[in-house]
Amino acid sequence: MTFSTNTSAHSRASLAVSVKLPSSESQNTVLAYLSQDYIALPPGTSVAEAQALFCSGIKNEQIPSQIFVVDDDDHLFGLVPVKSLLQADKEALLSDLMRSVGFSLTPEKTRHEACVEIKKSASNYIPVLSYGKLKGVLGPLEIAQLLEDENTLDSQLQGASSPLETPYLQSSVFTLWRKRSVWLLLLFVAEAYTSSVIKSFEDQLEAAIALAFFIPLLIGTGGNTGTQITSTLVRAMALGEVGLKDLGAILRKEISASVLIALTIGTAGFIRAWMLGVGMEVMMVVSLTLIAITVWSAIVSSIIPMLLRKVNIDPAVVSAPFITTLIDGTGLLIYFEIAKVMLTDLAV
Amino acid sequence: MTFSTNTSAHSRASLAVSVKLPSSESQNTVLAYLSQDYIALPPGTSVAEAQALFCSGIKNEQIPSQIFVVDDDDHLFGLVPVKSLLQADKEALLSDLMRSVGFSLTPEKTRHEACVEIKKSASNYIPVLSYGKLKGVLGPLEIAQLLEDENTLDSQLQGASSPLETPYLQSSVFTLWRKRSVWLLLLFVAEAYTSSVIKSFEDQLEAAIALAFFIPLLIGTGGNTGTQITSTLVRAMALGEVGLKDLGAILRKEISASVLIALTIGTAGFIRAWMLGVGMEVMMVVSLTLIAITVWSAIVSSIIPMLLRKVNIDPAVVSAPFITTLIDGTGLLIYFEIAKVMLTDLAV
Repeated sequence: MTFSTNTSAHSRASLAVSVKLPSSESQNTVLAYLSQDYIALPPGTSVAEAQALFCSGIKNEQIPSQIFVVDDDDHLFGLVPVKSLLQADKEALLSDLMRSVGFSLTPEKTRHEACVEIKKSASNYIPVLSYGKLKGVLGPLEIAQLLEDENTLDSQLQGASSPLETPYLQSSVFTLWRKRSVWLLLLFVAEAYTSSVIKSFEDQLEAAIALAFFIPLLIGTGGNTGTQITSTLVRAMALGEVGLKDLGAILRKEISASVLIALTIGTAGFIRAWMLGVGMEVMMVVSLTLIAITVWSAIVSSIIPMLLRKVNIDPAVVSAPFITTLIDGTGLLIYFEIAKVMLTDLAV
Repeated sequence: MTFSTNTSAHSRASLAVSVKLPSSESQNTVLAYLSQDYIALPPGTSVAEAQALFCSGIKNEQIPSQIFVVDDDDHLFGLVPVKSLLQADKEALLSDLMRSVGFSLTPEKTRHEACVEIKKSASNYIPVLSYGKLKGVLGPLEIAQLLEDENTLDSQLQGASSPLETPYLQSSVFTLWRKRSVWLLLLFVAEAYTSSVIKSFEDQLEAAIALAFFIPLLIGTGGNTGTQITSTLVRAMALGEVGLKDLGAILRKEISASVLIALTIGTAGFIRAWMLGVGMEVMMVVSLTLIAITVWSAIVSSIIPMLLRKVNIDPAVVSAPFITTLIDGTGLLIYFEIAKVMLTDLAV
């Protein structure tokens, strides 16, 4: 019985409360999810001793999949899978069974970074180390909570709203107003330039009022194309499937796909304009604008999530409203410029 | 040693391959995630025997948190937490430690339903039963995979695209075109009625061309308001926080919040119209339209996800493009009807 008491399973339990800081600063880091529900023993512990300590040290229904091997100062040497421990010869020492630590996290790591790394590593019992010292673990429950909180954040951001800190039904009307109106006002100010764009083409519009019929259809389609791309990319980035290095491959893929989509939608637009009886010239303008807006939207929507990642902003902020706002104004410019060139009575 | 060999840990292992059907029908049910990595023993097994079988039966790094107590026909009686098993008196029988099964799933349950139930139950080791017979388990790894697949589906749906079956970078250009153009064309057809709406107000528009300046701003803001609400509700429904029974509470909350938001945005719209110098009448029309569209959008966006859930459609299909398409046309109607009433030179 040579193990130091300060590394036994029991002394650990007392730490559990002190480390959970609910301060807003630590809420988005690994620290907020840290569990003290682990067993750490010195390398000289015998298997028989470790087995007994393991069995008596289990604190809840969740069985740890690993125990840790540490020195007197909590520096982590390695780990022993509980499978090996339970199946090993009772005379052996933990140092005989010890494996190196493949994957660990630091307490300061942000939740977003931790999510990407956890998904890549596919670990579900992760030691958290600060300067080599074991500070706690993330077990399956903590990991599930961390991933779910991040998914909730992503889905709130994708709806262009600040995340709610409380469950929906407990959130007050005032909280909803505060969380949402900030984003709505920002989007409103950004979208307001569309009015200036249309005003600057007032003469063209008066000469061919039929151009106004297609404004929502054209900019709406541009926004939808972009939203499809960003939502796919934002998710692929959250899963760690794509990163900055793939920008070239993504652009090639998205531009090629968008040309096919543009031809499909351009044809649909031609038919729709024909149904409204607006004349061949406007039909051509609508059709060409749809093609141009679709490809333009694809390029913008492929680049922006990558750019944000580059400057360390969570790409999940690129929501549908964000893309819509960006494409609406530039789409109108494309529309009226094409109209200016194509419509003979405007080409004065 | 009276336990029947066909319920021992070893004979289970051989089942693992045969049950994983990769058919597309089973892909979205619990069956596709079923693991055979569990230990089931008869109730008469002694603790000493069960401990030895448990230790030798661990097949991978993941330690089961429960063992199951079954009869000769695999009917599930109850479960024994591994914590109790490892800490119990060796002379006791499993039947002495046995607890009732609190939560189980059936293999046919859809992934979407399973997600909601798993989140509610907070279980991370779940027996899967068919007519009372134990067919397998969902352990922490399987549960994590199931939740992640569902989150990926939700985020693809929220982007108004059919889900990709392959990782993004492995998906071909043709696949992207196929998955996306179906949705885009549907949205295009739905959005196309906006052209008819504007055409039907052609006279009003010619009389007051300034009305056209605000079309993207007004319908964009309506769409953004709705997107904020649906994304919050869709997520809250996925987490099991709200259900159909909460419709009244949701409507009360959302309508109250939207009135506050409408007044905020209405003021912003008044200022923006004033900046463009369009005259007091159009300023009033823009401001009133923003107020009406915001409240209208809140009502529609609160009800639709609930209606879809009612008819068993995954509410995650209510994406930003879906809401935008719905609000664009109705928003234009509201706009031009208000204009007809308010603008004196149109009121002929």
